[in-house]
Amino acid sequence: MIIVLKAQATEQDAKHILNKIEQAGLKPLYMPGVERTVLGALGDERVLQKLHLENLPTVEEVKPILTKYKMVSRDVQAHDSVVRIGNVPVGGNRFTVIAGPCSVESEQQMLSVSEVVAKEGAVAIRGGAFKPRTSPYDFQGLGEEGLKLMSLARDMTGLPIVSEVMETSQVDMMVNYVDCLQIGARNMQNYGLLKAVGETGKPVLLKRGLSATIEELLLAAEYIYDAGNPNIILCERGIRTFETATRNTLDLNAVAVIKQKSHLPVLVDPSHGTGVRELVIPLSRAAAAVGADGIIVESHLNPSEALSDGHQALTGEMFAQLMQELKPFVEAAGRTL
Amino acid sequence: MIIVLKAQATEQDAKHILNKIEQAGLKPLYMPGVERTVLGALGDERVLQKLHLENLPTVEEVKPILTKYKMVSRDVQAHDSVVRIGNVPVGGNRFTVIAGPCSVESEQQMLSVSEVVAKEGAVAIRGGAFKPRTSPYDFQGLGEEGLKLMSLARDMTGLPIVSEVMETSQVDMMVNYVDCLQIGARNMQNYGLLKAVGETGKPVLLKRGLSATIEELLLAAEYIYDAGNPNIILCERGIRTFETATRNTLDLNAVAVIKQKSHLPVLVDPSHGTGVRELVIPLSRAAAAVGADGIIVESHLNPSEALSDGHQALTGEMFAQLMQELKPFVEAAGRTL
Amino acid sequence: MIIVLKAQATEQDAKHILNKIEQAGLKPLYMPGVERTVLGALGDERVLQKLHLENLPTVEEVKPILTKYKMVSRDVQAHDSVVRIGNVPVGGNRFTVIAGPCSVESEQQMLSVSEVVAKEGAVAIRGGAFKPRTSPYDFQGLGEEGLKLMSLARDMTGLPIVSEVMETSQVDMMVNYVDCLQIGARNMQNYGLLKAVGETGKPVLLKRGLSATIEELLLAAEYIYDAGNPNIILCERGIRTFETATRNTLDLNAVAVIKQKSHLPVLVDPSHGTGVRELVIPLSRAAAAVGADGIIVESHLNPSEALSDGHQALTGEMFAQLMQELKPFVEAAGRTL
Amino acid sequence: MIIVLKAQATEQDAKHILNKIEQAGLKPLYMPGVERTVLGALGDERVLQKLHLENLPTVEEVKPILTKYKMVSRDVQAHDSVVRIGNVPVGGNRFTVIAGPCSVESEQQMLSVSEVVAKEGAVAIRGGAFKPRTSPYDFQGLGEEGLKLMSLARDMTGLPIVSEVMETSQVDMMVNYVDCLQIGARNMQNYGLLKAVGETGKPVLLKRGLSATIEELLLAAEYIYDAGNPNIILCERGIRTFETATRNTLDLNAVAVIKQKSHLPVLVDPSHGTGVRELVIPLSRAAAAVGADGIIVESHLNPSEALSDGHQALTGEMFAQLMQELKPFVEAAGRTL
Repeated sequence: MIIVLKAQATEQDAKHILNKIEQAGLKPLYMPGVERTVLGALGDERVLQKLHLENLPTVEEVKPILTKYKMVSRDVQAHDSVVRIGNVPVGGNRFTVIAGPCSVESEQQMLSVSEVVAKEGAVAIRGGAFKPRTSPYDFQGLGEEGLKLMSLARDMTGLPIVSEVMETSQVDMMVNYVDCLQIGARNMQNYGLLKAVGETGKPVLLKRGLSATIEELLLAAEYIYDAGNPNIILCERGIRTFETATRNTLDLNAVAVIKQKSHLPVLVDPSHGTGVRELVIPLSRAAAAVGADGIIVESHLNPSEALSDGHQALTGEMFAQLMQELKPFVEAAGRTL
Repeated sequence: MIIVLKAQATEQDAKHILNKIEQAGLKPLYMPGVERTVLGALGDERVLQKLHLENLPTVEEVKPILTKYKMVSRDVQAHDSVVRIGNVPVGGNRFTVIAGPCSVESEQQMLSVSEVVAKEGAVAIRGGAFKPRTSPYDFQGLGEEGLKLMSLARDMTGLPIVSEVMETSQVDMMVNYVDCLQIGARNMQNYGLLKAVGETGKPVLLKRGLSATIEELLLAAEYIYDAGNPNIILCERGIRTFETATRNTLDLNAVAVIKQKSHLPVLVDPSHGTGVRELVIPLSRAAAAVGADGIIVESHLNPSEALSDGHQALTGEMFAQLMQELKPFVEAAGRTL
Repeated sequence: MIIVLKAQATEQDAKHILNKIEQAGLKPLYMPGVERTVLGALGDERVLQKLHLENLPTVEEVKPILTKYKMVSRDVQAHDSVVRIGNVPVGGNRFTVIAGPCSVESEQQMLSVSEVVAKEGAVAIRGGAFKPRTSPYDFQGLGEEGLKLMSLARDMTGLPIVSEVMETSQVDMMVNYVDCLQIGARNMQNYGLLKAVGETGKPVLLKRGLSATIEELLLAAEYIYDAGNPNIILCERGIRTFETATRNTLDLNAVAVIKQKSHLPVLVDPSHGTGVRELVIPLSRAAAAVGADGIIVESHLNPSEALSDGHQALTGEMFAQLMQELKPFVEAAGRTL
Repeated sequence: MIIVLKAQATEQDAKHILNKIEQAGLKPLYMPGVERTVLGALGDERVLQKLHLENLPTVEEVKPILTKYKMVSRDVQAHDSVVRIGNVPVGGNRFTVIAGPCSVESEQQMLSVSEVVAKEGAVAIRGGAFKPRTSPYDFQGLGEEGLKLMSLARDMTGLPIVSEVMETSQVDMMVNYVDCLQIGARNMQNYGLLKAVGETGKPVLLKRGLSATIEELLLAAEYIYDAGNPNIILCERGIRTFETATRNTLDLNAVAVIKQKSHLPVLVDPSHGTGVRELVIPLSRAAAAVGADGIIVESHLNPSEALSDGHQALTGEMFAQLMQELKPFVEAAGRTL
């Protein structure tokens, strides 16, 4: 940790801080300069953070040297993690395609779309039973009834299912139904929920928050890991920027950065990442090319009747086209579909 | 609602949509143009939203004309709402100053800072018992014990207390301790929590999310109102932008916009809005000048020992200076402290 | 154009505006609603914009229906444009790779890196002679001397050269040296410069501004086109967001959007788009997959001695690896390198 | 300067860099740690930047300790600068109000609005003769003819005039007409233009770029200062964010930060900073309260006929109201109008 003192700080001020560092059992360093004095503190930065040196009036800035996350870092585990959703491995040589409707709307809707995406090569089914909606007047999801319909889809297709958990109180009930708990973008920093899913041991699909930095995403994953659950899949789903032509700005830089910093698998959600049906296929291709471990896409056999996000859902035909177009890019990346 | 069709849409496509609009009991309008056909639908836009016209392949764009929120809008109530925290009115002629530490750390810390801010003119005490922290290794708050210490501060000063609720499961317990429930920025779209605090009837201090638009903030308030609780105080606390010199960018435009669009009172949090102790006073002055109904600031008698956010906490002396500097600006705004 | 009136606007106000629309030779439409009156105006929106209806006190909002750009739009030309830099076509079946140093530093540096990238398959050479630098104390480029060194590189490799023009006064001189004029991100809305390069007829590589929307980029291109020059190549080079792990956020959504809206070719600059050498290859792969027409990358045989942007420059070995890794993705996209 | 080495860097790598630092005449520091080795380099950071240590493959990160700007910094000059536009001091005890139309449109328009704003207390007149417009089909300004009309306004009112210079080639002509050269937001990093206005010695009103950091704004000012011109007035005019309810997000944090870091005067432009006429007065009040040295606002006697930005222009009555509302806030800030 590097501590930059204010211009007016005296040698006395510096010594006071160096003593604090030493008393905490760390190695202090004194670097008097022409315009600013700089101090160093070597050792476990988590101990150092508890000194709260940034609060001192003589301190201009504290610059940490190490990241705050540990367990999800490649420094701790060099090889890629593989997380299994049911019997589907995410993170290995296979490029994982998860598909299904934004919201579960009815048995007929859920089963028909599941049949199509399963036939075309999806390896897991997504669907929303509890829906976080910006307006209280929008469709809020079928709740537990929706999970039952998803279970039927699993029985029919043999594929595992993924659904979003919105509250701590839902966790116990949901683990009975789903193979993977999704944490939505709005809940990425809902720490109670992160701890709760961490305690289940179930695979967790953790979506990046709308304005979360990559480091904050990894720290959110660290919460889950710290609660005892290493089965974490990260998901880039677009960030909020000034651009209005797309719903969000899909940040594929983030996928490449995370693959360097963390051993966890990373999916891409091109449906929310663009918000435009016609952009889903090109961005899915790009996700495969940049090194993502898979995609999670929204599909609906009749998007014009969808109760939510119909504008970004692929029809059955488009989903088939997606799988066909993806293939050469997945192979170019040295993986299989 | 205005519906813009794609260039290739036929008259037949237009008629199909016009029929849908009519069947929904609304008035359809047909506007064929040289380059694009535009349709209109007059009536309750909430009915229209359920048609999901944006999902149709022939539709390029759907432009709503009315905002989605109702009850928190000035269209529904022209005069300013006044919300009472304990016996303290927020939203009237008085400029409300709420102050206290970021985190409750100990009885001594809580009582001593409460005594000072009460003496200097704060009308309510803030403090964090449950702390949302980016890293699992940071101090997470004292929990219910912290609420007990806040209650002691209330007993001593006679001032009402405000504290953040992080989870639905905490709501019942917290209403026994606090006079106002705070929803933090990270939970602005935690809809289960919004509904839960909405059912209590307790005053709610709703903070704007890091990347929430003003409309999304008002829709989050609408969730609380819709659950039966009109006692909502909004809070601008800075948004996330590219600027790194400050922790957030305090958006005082938003205060002026909200005062136009909504009847709810609006506070400003200059501590989180800047993240820099030295900027709190000038931005508090600006908050009074722009028309905010008050501020909520962090104060700590010994910021260099604070367990969280010490870098943005005002010392007792600085808090006294804040109150003194605020006075002429509050009076210039036609209010009293 | 759709004109939404304020709630308090009278029928009289509406008629006043409808008259204005009619007098401008356009077709007016009257849509009285329960909560708001909406007006329509059908015809050439450029005429309508001159009415400045948004300025009227009774008008709440004016919503244009058509984009403001014309000549660069697919509505005007459905097929892809191919722009030739020297004898190199950009925008056809070939995936264009342009490479070279950030700054021209010396004859030795320029020629050696040009030799390598030419050998490995680059089809044009980039290099900066005039450098826009954030600080006045940073290296500002060799100026015309740099262009002479680039000409030597062209003579040696037979490849055309691309360099940034920073000012109108440099245009006449630069057209004698370079095969393609680059407009940098900071100058995307330097309208005098856009007009000046528009008058030359030379190919222009127009980079997206740091916080320019896609529509603003297309309008900047429209300036060049409108000045008589259709030889425009667009370039996505990353936008400014809150994320600090990368220098910019490469917006590959934008590539897919532009390919829908415009007939102009689009390159991607993964060097500036990431700012991190190790991320250049994965994002180049993604650029090929999303449908870009090529990439422009920075390369330096000795990046640790580079006078600018060495941290994002590929070494000769890495450039060779880039070309090798790109190949299968370019082929998957149905193109050739 | 602090240099953090990568985890795999050896002692040998560290020594290599320490030698480089020493050879550059600076004091090297060696700080081996458990997880990372950190090096320090003490002395003039501008020399250090030329070493380009960030380019080395063994270096993870280089953290500068000092800002890159010098002459515009409070470290160099502790007291506030006062810049005179004609005989009007900007930056002292007086709160400067500059007003006038967005575009100069006609003699009648220019003179009538100048008369009103002068009568109400504006101390300088603004007006645009050369207009940077997003679309080539929008009104581009009257050019030199507009400057002549502004000169008439100066003759009539006795007030100095401010107008935007868009290109280097306009500088010589414009200095004959105007008392202060404005650099617009889109040109904040047009370095040739910054140098050119720097060489004139005329006062320069430098607007912050749409996505420029505070540090970049100060570095742009440093370009002007470095070219020999200390007469620089900074202007906060809103930054681009995700919020769409306002045209830009006015960043009043930035005013308070700049007042700490720099001795230059700072104005606020609430017209562009909000883009909404009704928000101009509250944000002007806030500008006075936060410590700005004045405001620059758009005014038009007949905004509904304005050729540009009519939606954000104050009418004569609103300008009079602005001056009246400003007064108590300016006085609360210890200044006079």
